Amino acid sequence: MAPTSARVPEPTVARLSLYLRLLRRLAAAGVGTVSSAQMEAQLGITSAQIRKDLSHLGEFGRPGIGYDVEHLLGRLTEIMQLDREQRVVIVGAGNLGSALVGYLGFANTVFRIVGIFDNNFSKIGRMLWSLEILDVQRLLEINAELRASIGLIAVPAEAAQEVADLLVKAGIRAILNFAPTVVTVPAGVALRHVDLTRELEILSYLVSRTAPEPQSARARQ
Amino acid sequence: MAPTSARVPEPTVARLSLYLRLLRRLAAAGVGTVSSAQMEAQLGITSAQIRKDLSHLGEFGRPGIGYDVEHLLGRLTEIMQLDREQRVVIVGAGNLGSALVGYLGFANTVFRIVGIFDNNFSKIGRMLWSLEILDVQRLLEINAELRASIGLIAVPAEAAQEVADLLVKAGIRAILNFAPTVVTVPAGVALRHVDLTRELEILSYLVSRTAPEPQSARARQ
Repeated sequence: MAPTSARVPEPTVARLSLYLRLLRRLAAAGVGTVSSAQMEAQLGITSAQIRKDLSHLGEFGRPGIGYDVEHLLGRLTEIMQLDREQRVVIVGAGNLGSALVGYLGFANTVFRIVGIFDNNFSKIGRMLWSLEILDVQRLLEINAELRASIGLIAVPAEAAQEVADLLVKAGIRAILNFAPTVVTVPAGVALRHVDLTRELEILSYLVSRTAPEPQSARARQ
Repeated sequence: MAPTSARVPEPTVARLSLYLRLLRRLAAAGVGTVSSAQMEAQLGITSAQIRKDLSHLGEFGRPGIGYDVEHLLGRLTEIMQLDREQRVVIVGAGNLGSALVGYLGFANTVFRIVGIFDNNFSKIGRMLWSLEILDVQRLLEINAELRASIGLIAVPAEAAQEVADLLVKAGIRAILNFAPTVVTVPAGVALRHVDLTRELEILSYLVSRTAPEPQSARARQ
């Protein structure tokens, strides 16, 4: 079955990933069918939204029965291209880059880290788990062989845009930026951002709003 | 100046963190004032949105001049409680938890990791950087002394909800969940989710849509 050619909006794609995870769990537990109402109870996403999202893919549950778990799981896996290896390169072999290699290297997913790059000559040539740290200056040349399509940016903020440009030149078509700064990419390249410091800063604000401390709050004024 | 008592919507808070970062950069570069149009050019957020967000805080730029960088930086830092130490505990001393300790431990921020916990007896008592890995069964008792208000969940999916419940009981008021699963918390506790596998899965889908490969795509069918 050919993947649907319609473009699915990015927020929908983000939810598809959640549906996929639930369906994997249900399939592993031997559950045969699931209704949008049952999915709502598990995920906290309204059943109306779930039905709309899945209708983007041409999938419709049967009234009173629901969705066939194995069929929907197969469709989602295929549409999201998670039925094949996805090759990933990381630029930046510092604390975060090293952590990502260790973490993703052991996670049981289709994402395979095929290269890690740095510009620090004291790091280049050293081994990180089973990967040799490579010279970022050689990224274009090396990725012509590695053929990774996903790139992770794990360098300091001031180097992030330069690295993004380099990844795009090297044929990378989707970037996950971990650097605490905004980077831009040309149309036709996908970009998402994981910003740990920012997440903590948002929580810092929310802490002050979620559970008031009348005593200490007054003491500050 | 007392922080504004109005509740700022969470998407606005997420943008405040971006404004803060830009203002820090401008202040470091000695820039005295910045207009919402200049901020738009740097951040890709419309100047109308920026003005609306900042008006939530009672901050209004002066027409033709803009915002005073130092003043706005001070206000945002205060409102987001980034003018004081924020104490953080991590549950899970596996690859990801260890990486978070290493990464956040060296980042120059107000977030201070004061404790890391695990349930694995072969890990408890070992040192991770300068922190001893502690028994998660003792979290309630120990956090009464550590007084952390932010908790990071870095355990496998199947243990995440149990850990979230424990963190809430221990007085944690804001949780950043790194486990690849949905967890729920009571009203009054803030929760955000960083899900690396999910981000990669979303990119996997977007890769297939952003830059078609007509040759190989045909070959698959």
